[in-house]
Amino acid sequence: MFEKYIYMARRTQLMSKMMTGRILLLGNIENPINFEHNTYPFRQDSSFLYYIGIKSPKLAAVLDPENGETILFGDEMSIDDIVWMGWQETLAEKASRAGIDKIRPFDQLFEYLLHLGTRCTIHYLPPYQSHNKLLLEQLLNCPVNKLYPSISLIQAVAAQRNIKSAEEIAEIEKAVDVAVDMHRLAIRMAVPGCFEYQISNAMQHFAQDQEMCFSYPPIVTKRGEILHNHMQFHQLHDGDILLNDSGVETPLGYASDLTRSFPVGKRFTSLQEDMYHIVLHAFKTAEQLLTPEVGFKDIHLRACEALVEGLKQVGFMKGNVQDAVANHAHALFFQCGLGHLLGLDVHDMEDLGEQYVGYTAAEPKDTNTFGIKSLRLGKKLEIGNVLTVEPGIYLIPELTQLWEQQNLHRDFINYDFLKKHLGFGGIRIEDNYVIEKDGARRLGKYLERELQEIYQLKDQYLD
Amino acid sequence: MFEKYIYMARRTQLMSKMMTGRILLLGNIENPINFEHNTYPFRQDSSFLYYIGIKSPKLAAVLDPENGETILFGDEMSIDDIVWMGWQETLAEKASRAGIDKIRPFDQLFEYLLHLGTRCTIHYLPPYQSHNKLLLEQLLNCPVNKLYPSISLIQAVAAQRNIKSAEEIAEIEKAVDVAVDMHRLAIRMAVPGCFEYQISNAMQHFAQDQEMCFSYPPIVTKRGEILHNHMQFHQLHDGDILLNDSGVETPLGYASDLTRSFPVGKRFTSLQEDMYHIVLHAFKTAEQLLTPEVGFKDIHLRACEALVEGLKQVGFMKGNVQDAVANHAHALFFQCGLGHLLGLDVHDMEDLGEQYVGYTAAEPKDTNTFGIKSLRLGKKLEIGNVLTVEPGIYLIPELTQLWEQQNLHRDFINYDFLKKHLGFGGIRIEDNYVIEKDGARRLGKYLERELQEIYQLKDQYLD
Repeated sequence: MFEKYIYMARRTQLMSKMMTGRILLLGNIENPINFEHNTYPFRQDSSFLYYIGIKSPKLAAVLDPENGETILFGDEMSIDDIVWMGWQETLAEKASRAGIDKIRPFDQLFEYLLHLGTRCTIHYLPPYQSHNKLLLEQLLNCPVNKLYPSISLIQAVAAQRNIKSAEEIAEIEKAVDVAVDMHRLAIRMAVPGCFEYQISNAMQHFAQDQEMCFSYPPIVTKRGEILHNHMQFHQLHDGDILLNDSGVETPLGYASDLTRSFPVGKRFTSLQEDMYHIVLHAFKTAEQLLTPEVGFKDIHLRACEALVEGLKQVGFMKGNVQDAVANHAHALFFQCGLGHLLGLDVHDMEDLGEQYVGYTAAEPKDTNTFGIKSLRLGKKLEIGNVLTVEPGIYLIPELTQLWEQQNLHRDFINYDFLKKHLGFGGIRIEDNYVIEKDGARRLGKYLERELQEIYQLKDQYLD
Repeated sequence: MFEKYIYMARRTQLMSKMMTGRILLLGNIENPINFEHNTYPFRQDSSFLYYIGIKSPKLAAVLDPENGETILFGDEMSIDDIVWMGWQETLAEKASRAGIDKIRPFDQLFEYLLHLGTRCTIHYLPPYQSHNKLLLEQLLNCPVNKLYPSISLIQAVAAQRNIKSAEEIAEIEKAVDVAVDMHRLAIRMAVPGCFEYQISNAMQHFAQDQEMCFSYPPIVTKRGEILHNHMQFHQLHDGDILLNDSGVETPLGYASDLTRSFPVGKRFTSLQEDMYHIVLHAFKTAEQLLTPEVGFKDIHLRACEALVEGLKQVGFMKGNVQDAVANHAHALFFQCGLGHLLGLDVHDMEDLGEQYVGYTAAEPKDTNTFGIKSLRLGKKLEIGNVLTVEPGIYLIPELTQLWEQQNLHRDFINYDFLKKHLGFGGIRIEDNYVIEKDGARRLGKYLERELQEIYQLKDQYLD
């Protein structure tokens, strides 16, 4: 946990925005795998972690803005618990480290809310784990499909969590540093004959030995064009590109999210080199634009233009670059967004709704147009935002076939040339940044991304 | 997946027991960690896996005993799914490999059940994941706390899954074999200076490289007296006992569950050796009693007697052995059960209720008495049962203090002697067995358990 005053200040700030009613924050439980007592690794809810700091299951907190009070609902261990799970720090001790001295048994939460009655608004965040959907149903005596999370609470939490403090940034940098070493391990392991899952397993082992865990299921694949590819059964061969999108989470819950794409053999082919340079150019274009008050959607579109320029030179695209991007023709090669917010979640606060977290009411998210609808962050950058930049090029056979059948964007896409290279795969480069006064700072240790640097690593490891 | 006819025969057998109504089997989903799209590794529900065999999320099946028909409810991938997750075998292809040719979109399950109306009984198993509690609430238009799982279905499923077929036993033996090598790795790694989590992480890595995963969160601890100790932060020192309770799950979902306790240094102390031999003697006592028609509760009590005999010799207990066990005085040292059923779940079918799975209506479970209330299996053994045997001795300071304060069993317990050894820790030995015609067969490769064998491993690894 951070120092106690940090949690106290965070709660005070939140309560100062909410004036009336009560704020109900629900922690997570230990979720069952195949029966109640065989459970997945516990992960506390990120907003609960942010305001309360305690990483234990079955807790809830109520914040009362009218008197500035926080009540923690949860149970101390019984003697049975101690026999089965060992003595641990008491809940009172943990709460004290978060500056909370009012603790009540968990079940009293029902009575507490009942007692408040309907005259008092209960503000709560959107539940994403089914357990908390059911709990809210029971706590509020309201069917799940009638639950109505508090927009004002979402906005207050998003505004606060969107601006990272120095301690938070230091924590994310720890996550980046371990991820950098983990990525270098992957580059070292990825030689012809190796299987994708062997690399992924070794990375997990490496991270866990440093008391971290994956911040999301890693993408370690020679089929990098599959954007969320969690299949890792391929054997690697000379000539393959390995795309490694993986990051770790610190004990305090902060995430990193890095991607590198590199040859399994010693060198890329000529086309792979060309495509790598296109992605790297788009990456640097975006990196240089990261500045307060600049809209991230605009940076996304500028990166798309950089991609189209390169794709024209190689022969995949044609026509006017700005027109191609305005018409979303580039989305055949770059189907997703340039980046997203990063923090206690790898897609920070995605549970609160991208509309509130990454966009504004004045400039809402486009939820229809293929490509841009997958951009999770669109609004103007602010000092203290932490985010990823991750342009890529992905040649997806099924999508290409569909677009060609539908005669989409024939003015911009050279289908004949493209169809000769449908086995190309995908390339992505991704680093993590914090927005500062005059621009942005890349977080953590530098991970090789220039082709010559990657080739040097390969030479070093393959000799 | 097994051969198609196996799933067809399993369903036919189940339907032959159920005659009327419909059997509704719900698969699991991908459960969110900290937001909807960041998910835990998918694990199919075990009963769904047993009857349907398909390891994909968001499926349900309805079996109609009246016409022997199975309908699978689930959705094929959309083009968006293919773009994001890659082309995979279609649901129709997977279903075909389970002998199912009737497939409908998932959402039609609502309409299907509505159409059946209240005249038709819908049999379903107890839900343990909150998602399926909510789904049943919606499918059956019934509040969660009014859901009423079908006892006759539970009994039919338990009777069927309790008797393992040759293919299932072969699969469990694969899980044991990998676990045996994993345990030897742990013995090799556990040297002074090493941390518990390093061993656990290396074991996970080893299992995953063989396309298996942990079948439960492993217990790797020098505080073996903490029965479900998932804390792994201790450094190991000469003189410590390391207790390693860990097993793996095969790609088809079958589990192993082994425990060994061994010295971190080259040799146990004299007291540790004495205690090890007591546990090993109780273990062999139980092992020899495993036979069809013998009640497992009786074997448990015989093993408890063996423990008490040994504890008397060392000086921890006194008085008449049978009386001590009859009065549950041994439960201060052996707080849990001798073993449990093993199969697609490490505690097989614990989700269905131990009362139905491990006991009978004629001889129900004792749910009150400390010690025996934690025995998950009590009924007579049958040919084809697969189970664990896992006696142990655990010296728990908090429990000892409590019992002494309450003046419990002073006729049987030498509290003065015991209090001199409260830092002892715990020892457990566990193997997996199938009940056969004339006794039982230990499953999989032999894992060293005689003290001399373990010392030989230590000598080999520590030189």
